[in-house]
Amino acid sequence: MSETDHKQKLQEYRESIDNIDASLIFMLAERFKITKKVGFYKKEHQLPPADPARESKQIERLRALAKSAKLDPEFSEKFLQFVIEEVIRHHEKIRDGNL
Amino acid sequence: MSETDHKQKLQEYRESIDNIDASLIFMLAERFKITKKVGFYKKEHQLPPADPARESKQIERLRALAKSAKLDPEFSEKFLQFVIEEVIRHHEKIRDGNL
Repeated sequence: MSETDHKQKLQEYRESIDNIDASLIFMLAERFKITKKVGFYKKEHQLPPADPARESKQIERLRALAKSAKLDPEFSEKFLQFVIEEVIRHHEKIRDGNL
Repeated sequence: MSETDHKQKLQEYRESIDNIDASLIFMLAERFKITKKVGFYKKEHQLPPADPARESKQIERLRALAKSAKLDPEFSEKFLQFVIEEVIRHHEKIRDGNL
């Protein structure tokens, strides 16, 4: 393989990464649309922004899915926690009437 | 709406969140499959694990996509950085022959 072929290979990988990233962003946007509705539901019913029982179920489920996809289960857990932290911030804002 | 209807509504939201999370996990698995190939390419060509020029292009692109999807651009940037940190860890392992 020439240097040009190699560069083309890297470019090809990056184009796939960019497509996947766009999908991830749109999926996350959709996820937050739903969790905002959950936030308003929780405000209406005076439920706390965080729900540890639900979260531990989600973590177990995602770790199992990650294993089946050959993704590091530790990473999937960190990822969910990263997303949930943002969700809780939204729920707190909703609770305080700031969203 | 009765309390049962409300609980059903919350359950419905959570089922959609769970479907989206499964998609996110499988997309992330696919993304890391590609970035591992990039890692081996970088090792072969003695390129550094991180690539700040590429990263800043990715950040700008994802911020624009996030805006169009009504997702907080700050969050999209934090998300990309979170994923890239994991990618760099993989690239370092590959460079050191540990993956």
